[in-house]
Amino acid sequence: MSNLSQDAMQQLFSDARTHSHWQPRSIEDSLLQALYEQAKWGPTSMNCQPMRLVFVKSPEAKEKLKQALAPGNVEKTMNAPVTVIVATDMTFYEGMPRLFPANANARDMFANNTALAEATALRNATLQGGYLILAARALGLDCGPMSGFNTDLVNDLFFAGTTIKANFLVNLGYGLSDKVYPRGPRYDFDEACTIT
Amino acid sequence: MSNLSQDAMQQLFSDARTHSHWQPRSIEDSLLQALYEQAKWGPTSMNCQPMRLVFVKSPEAKEKLKQALAPGNVEKTMNAPVTVIVATDMTFYEGMPRLFPANANARDMFANNTALAEATALRNATLQGGYLILAARALGLDCGPMSGFNTDLVNDLFFAGTTIKANFLVNLGYGLSDKVYPRGPRYDFDEACTIT
Repeated sequence: MSNLSQDAMQQLFSDARTHSHWQPRSIEDSLLQALYEQAKWGPTSMNCQPMRLVFVKSPEAKEKLKQALAPGNVEKTMNAPVTVIVATDMTFYEGMPRLFPANANARDMFANNTALAEATALRNATLQGGYLILAARALGLDCGPMSGFNTDLVNDLFFAGTTIKANFLVNLGYGLSDKVYPRGPRYDFDEACTIT
Repeated sequence: MSNLSQDAMQQLFSDARTHSHWQPRSIEDSLLQALYEQAKWGPTSMNCQPMRLVFVKSPEAKEKLKQALAPGNVEKTMNAPVTVIVATDMTFYEGMPRLFPANANARDMFANNTALAEATALRNATLQGGYLILAARALGLDCGPMSGFNTDLVNDLFFAGTTIKANFLVNLGYGLSDKVYPRGPRYDFDEACTIT
């Protein structure tokens, strides 16, 4: 394997920006499916795949989500063609017999250890959320991830009676590049990393 | 923006595999630096960047890490040219005045709310870990992520006296493609996702 092209690296990482203002351009359901079909390949612990996604697209569903948004996140979310609720199935382990048949004990290992199950669910669903963001960029979409919302209310509105819990939100669309905020600084290598 | 090439999508997602067997080929420090320089651009909440990385490369450091590994993770980790400890600075908020000057209250918002600080630290450091895995693949490296290790012991061995806590490990190197395990199934779109 060789490096991706410089253009690809820029699209994924160095030129990509968080967007809050959107072109009036919709996203076809087929593109949302293509997005999942890429993101799903990212690795999870014992292939546990705890991430669940709700693509909020209709005006009715957007209005429902609106009630739970922090005030600063309302306008950009209502204007985005799609907002995805990145969520976590806290009983993901019920799928383990199918997802990881190599270990017949995998389901019980989590089912009998709430702390391990919760840590595994959150870590791996969040990793999958990271893959989702980069897969969206790889498919030419812009992202606006957010954690400013009332989680309990989103859970009541979208996941009542289930074991699924909201993790974070991502606005998806085609951003207006001239309206992004000034880029925040990143830590230098020596501030965040050591080689030992 | 357009889609990345099919080759690039395959390298990042559909053809990429978790590796446990490694070519006897080292990784230069300059490539580890290049890896961070890409991954660092991924978005975090209020630009908080809680991820900290320890690239375990020397035989001495590898031996130290070995003590904390689950038995099934020892051989592949000792044979990998580099193992990165993906960790989280639980007091990441001390950096907020520099990282997110737009909100003068950002530091105190987290410093005065332990639950919010912990959730934000773990969510965002894990997202950054997802960016790291895909950045490694983008740079032609193979990955073997793992959570099977004694977290408390890694914290004692590598992060004593700090506010940094280990999150997960990733072996990095050039994998032996003929030795990967059969690929686990992924959930179909309709099993993991809804459009509303």
